[in-house]
Amino acid sequence: MLVTDPYAVYYLTDYLTDPKERFLGLYLNADGNHVLFLNNLFFQTRDLGVKEVRFSDTDPVMQIVSEYIHPGEVLGIDKCMQARFLIPLMAHAKASDYVLSSLCIDMARAIKDASEIEKMVEASRINDLAMEKLKALIHPGVTEIEIADQLKAIYQNLGASDNSFDPIVAFGENGADGHHMPDDTVLSEGQSIIFDVGCLKDGYCSDMTRTFFYQTVSEKHRKIYELVQKAQQAAVEAIRPGIPICQIDKIARDIISAEGYGKNFNHRLGHFIGMEVHEYGDVSCANETLLQEGMIFSIEPGIYLTGEMGVRIEDLVVVTKDGCMRLNHYPRELEIIHP
Amino acid sequence: MLVTDPYAVYYLTDYLTDPKERFLGLYLNADGNHVLFLNNLFFQTRDLGVKEVRFSDTDPVMQIVSEYIHPGEVLGIDKCMQARFLIPLMAHAKASDYVLSSLCIDMARAIKDASEIEKMVEASRINDLAMEKLKALIHPGVTEIEIADQLKAIYQNLGASDNSFDPIVAFGENGADGHHMPDDTVLSEGQSIIFDVGCLKDGYCSDMTRTFFYQTVSEKHRKIYELVQKAQQAAVEAIRPGIPICQIDKIARDIISAEGYGKNFNHRLGHFIGMEVHEYGDVSCANETLLQEGMIFSIEPGIYLTGEMGVRIEDLVVVTKDGCMRLNHYPRELEIIHP
Repeated sequence: MLVTDPYAVYYLTDYLTDPKERFLGLYLNADGNHVLFLNNLFFQTRDLGVKEVRFSDTDPVMQIVSEYIHPGEVLGIDKCMQARFLIPLMAHAKASDYVLSSLCIDMARAIKDASEIEKMVEASRINDLAMEKLKALIHPGVTEIEIADQLKAIYQNLGASDNSFDPIVAFGENGADGHHMPDDTVLSEGQSIIFDVGCLKDGYCSDMTRTFFYQTVSEKHRKIYELVQKAQQAAVEAIRPGIPICQIDKIARDIISAEGYGKNFNHRLGHFIGMEVHEYGDVSCANETLLQEGMIFSIEPGIYLTGEMGVRIEDLVVVTKDGCMRLNHYPRELEIIHP
Repeated sequence: MLVTDPYAVYYLTDYLTDPKERFLGLYLNADGNHVLFLNNLFFQTRDLGVKEVRFSDTDPVMQIVSEYIHPGEVLGIDKCMQARFLIPLMAHAKASDYVLSSLCIDMARAIKDASEIEKMVEASRINDLAMEKLKALIHPGVTEIEIADQLKAIYQNLGASDNSFDPIVAFGENGADGHHMPDDTVLSEGQSIIFDVGCLKDGYCSDMTRTFFYQTVSEKHRKIYELVQKAQQAAVEAIRPGIPICQIDKIARDIISAEGYGKNFNHRLGHFIGMEVHEYGDVSCANETLLQEGMIFSIEPGIYLTGEMGVRIEDLVVVTKDGCMRLNHYPRELEIIHP
């Protein structure tokens, strides 16, 4: 198998680099003769316990790699491998077939060991504290971007190294766009306020969403909020080893659909998370994998009314021996902010 | 051709999104019936002038896409397309072959029109001003990360929206790593200081490097600096339409090699740049493309002494009718900083 996902390489070798448009590959071999392919520009001086093959920007990289590929055997391909490398590899190598094979590494990464769980608990503890500080930034006339731009410093003051993703701060109708980029929108009375934020601490990510309301909340929006809260709670309560992941998604979705908002919950219930904020594994109707102890993922139902508002409540959970534990403890009750 | 590079899709449709692990594709068809494949989660409400096909996270996406691919014809593949999409596409579609075909779009993107040049001139003007402000942050006891963390706010105060890449601030021996991540290293007397920074302004990038020295400079390091400066100047002076790009790289490299530092200049001379900080096109010995008016790229020779120091001087240039124009005007003379 040729591993090219930089985080998978990191997971397997403890060597992390962002190769950008350059090739990085770890050839895993059943005979134990693994090979790490590195551009000369990648700074790596430790003994990683694998053979290293170096090349420069002007070398025919995939021709060099292909010489190591066992002829006549099936080659596993990383889901992240780009066509710029895969198509030339297929032209030069003599493998009998090329099949996606990242799943074995992804499933290993999905189950966190004790030291990983400890780091993720800490990253989420910081995230809980950061949410309180974000809330304190709300004042008349504040814009989304003004709040979003202060988050990195908040995290750093709390001991994290950075945001784990570009934070979402979305007021009112902007909240209906699940991936809204914070802009100059000014907060107005009655608007929903979505904070979807996370930090990076010791190489692991947190990710939490809370939705507040500014000064007032309409009855309609209150009911929507409480429905999302109820769906989130029910999903979390259902988590335990042996349950198919799709069933967790269904529990939350059924609650929202029963009130007529099924089409307004237009995304999966959650995603796996670890060294990367989105790791392999959907919490969705399409994932029949059984839950296992040590899995960490988000539970984040939402209801979005285009042109009007959005509500999302998200916590990370870790599957335990007989249930799950939330990594986030920031209150989930509806809160109206009067600054 | 199936275009999947989000920036290529943006260039062709004016629609920009970051699809992350989800599929985004623009199927360009010789018959004019182009199709844009979008996840339901991608917020897009404008009329882009192409047919849109929507899918959700739980749909068999590449099966849907493959139904649109003309059977028996060669399909062009984007260099950025990931194996998670390409391998299933190859399994379902009935194209006669799959060939890398991004070059046609990349070459169009490489040549900037007047409005793009104007934006890039402005982004580099801001970068010149930011370099002055970075320099002012140097003081006894300062760390790399302390300076790097202030850059985004500097850019925003100057009217840019963000960093165009994670800034490199590297003191002394850290400068020998071309992609050093700013850390807690404290500045000491006699060290080289590399600032490799750029901003994003109106969707276009700047990118400039300057190397300073702190309090003193050794004769050896002064000679290295002046050699890099001479190589950069000679390369810039040689740029004009019709010259093979590899020749520009050779001019700089020969000057550095003549003094015995050839192996210490371990990267290409430059890279193309535009909406992305690294766009298609190396300025290296492997690129025989002829320079054309409107191309914008970096000229950034460097000399790196492992365990000791590094020097790099980088400007962006635009190829003009009979030469080139630098986009950066920050002085390149050796400067010793006495804060």
